[in-house]
Amino acid sequence: MAFYIIGLGLGSEKDISVRGLELVRKCDEVYLETYTSLLPVTIEQLSAYYGKKIIPANRDLVEQRFEEQILPKAWEKHIALLVIGDPFSATTHIELMRAAKQRGIDVEAIGNASILTAVGLTGLQLYKFGKVTSIPFYEEDVLVETPYNILEENQSLGLHTLFLLDLDPPTERYMSVNTAISALLKLESHKKKKLFTENTLCVACARLGSDNIIKAGTAKKLMGEDFGRPPHCLIVPGKLHFLEEEALNYLS
Amino acid sequence: MAFYIIGLGLGSEKDISVRGLELVRKCDEVYLETYTSLLPVTIEQLSAYYGKKIIPANRDLVEQRFEEQILPKAWEKHIALLVIGDPFSATTHIELMRAAKQRGIDVEAIGNASILTAVGLTGLQLYKFGKVTSIPFYEEDVLVETPYNILEENQSLGLHTLFLLDLDPPTERYMSVNTAISALLKLESHKKKKLFTENTLCVACARLGSDNIIKAGTAKKLMGEDFGRPPHCLIVPGKLHFLEEEALNYLS
Repeated sequence: MAFYIIGLGLGSEKDISVRGLELVRKCDEVYLETYTSLLPVTIEQLSAYYGKKIIPANRDLVEQRFEEQILPKAWEKHIALLVIGDPFSATTHIELMRAAKQRGIDVEAIGNASILTAVGLTGLQLYKFGKVTSIPFYEEDVLVETPYNILEENQSLGLHTLFLLDLDPPTERYMSVNTAISALLKLESHKKKKLFTENTLCVACARLGSDNIIKAGTAKKLMGEDFGRPPHCLIVPGKLHFLEEEALNYLS
Repeated sequence: MAFYIIGLGLGSEKDISVRGLELVRKCDEVYLETYTSLLPVTIEQLSAYYGKKIIPANRDLVEQRFEEQILPKAWEKHIALLVIGDPFSATTHIELMRAAKQRGIDVEAIGNASILTAVGLTGLQLYKFGKVTSIPFYEEDVLVETPYNILEENQSLGLHTLFLLDLDPPTERYMSVNTAISALLKLESHKKKKLFTENTLCVACARLGSDNIIKAGTAKKLMGEDFGRPPHCLIVPGKLHFLEEEALNYLS
């Protein structure tokens, strides 16, 4: 009897680890966290492959009710929470693991590929990424300044900045890399630090871990391109090593 | 016919993804990169589980000869290079993928859990890690200053610092977290910036992804403890969010 938190990786139903799959198949109840990310396969495809009913778990269930209503079942049953990508990348999942341990429940966590490492596909060195930030959906002229400020901090040390882009699967809203660039340009027009201009070198990524669409170019150039289905993310490189420069040339 | 670079994750032979395992099993030649990390299972265990002969690939083979001698075989055969952890975390693996693509060879990369995300198990938020650095083996009084300097940069922005510790599997030398703390204290005694003292809060990790030994405490306290078998790593936290503080209290 235990609580398992299992990363599914970023691609298909077969990106789960063999160990993860064995655990899912022995579980009595299997939940899928559905609100922080997006898999390129449907819940029905996952369910068919795993041979298990999968219960979708939205933000309310995971953050408000899971600890009280679901975790205690792990005293008597095998309960799994499936997480897109890697389970260690989000505070919520780490907190659930700690809550389970504090209740004396056995916990096993199964890692997997994460967007935080998949950006290594760009050829930018993972060691040289600074703080990660998110660009939230914005209304009219109300822009959150955090992403701009974090870019400034990272740039001051020559570090790369990864911007994760907001998404809301229940309403099927997903921020495109184009919108993200536009948000940063708007922030620039307010803050005027020449930190992010139309000439800033950017790396646009779409569907890392499955299609792996990656393109390097100026903000202006990438703004005009279509990167297709979500999820997208944006990188603004810091100081480039020559191998990183070569990699970006290859992608531009 | 293609070149596959496949992450094995950090635990047992079953931490490979289902997709990765299917690819390994159809490959004509399977190599295992043996010099940048350490799995808790033997090459014989991997080989038995995958049902494939596995050819160990040392630094010389991977960095000097792989591109010329092995990659061209991927025109006519399925060739896999297995990598402990995640294949996107090391420049060498990214460079091999690019070399293969430039030769017109089909390349498929299969991500997995990485030490860079497994440190999320500590409860420290992955978003708030700064530049990653390594502590190399040192002789007598010859100490590389880079880890100290990177710690200083990260601390200036309140970011957490992950120190990867040197290892040399062929000679079975693995740096312990105790030696790493001792190296940072020696650097402190030279640089005298009060950046890393006996009272600095540290998080010591051993075998993340398998045994998951994690302990928080002062440098002095952790120096006196035994964390067992490698690999180890060391984290010096930056500015702590209250949830991170709670997590570290729980680990101390």
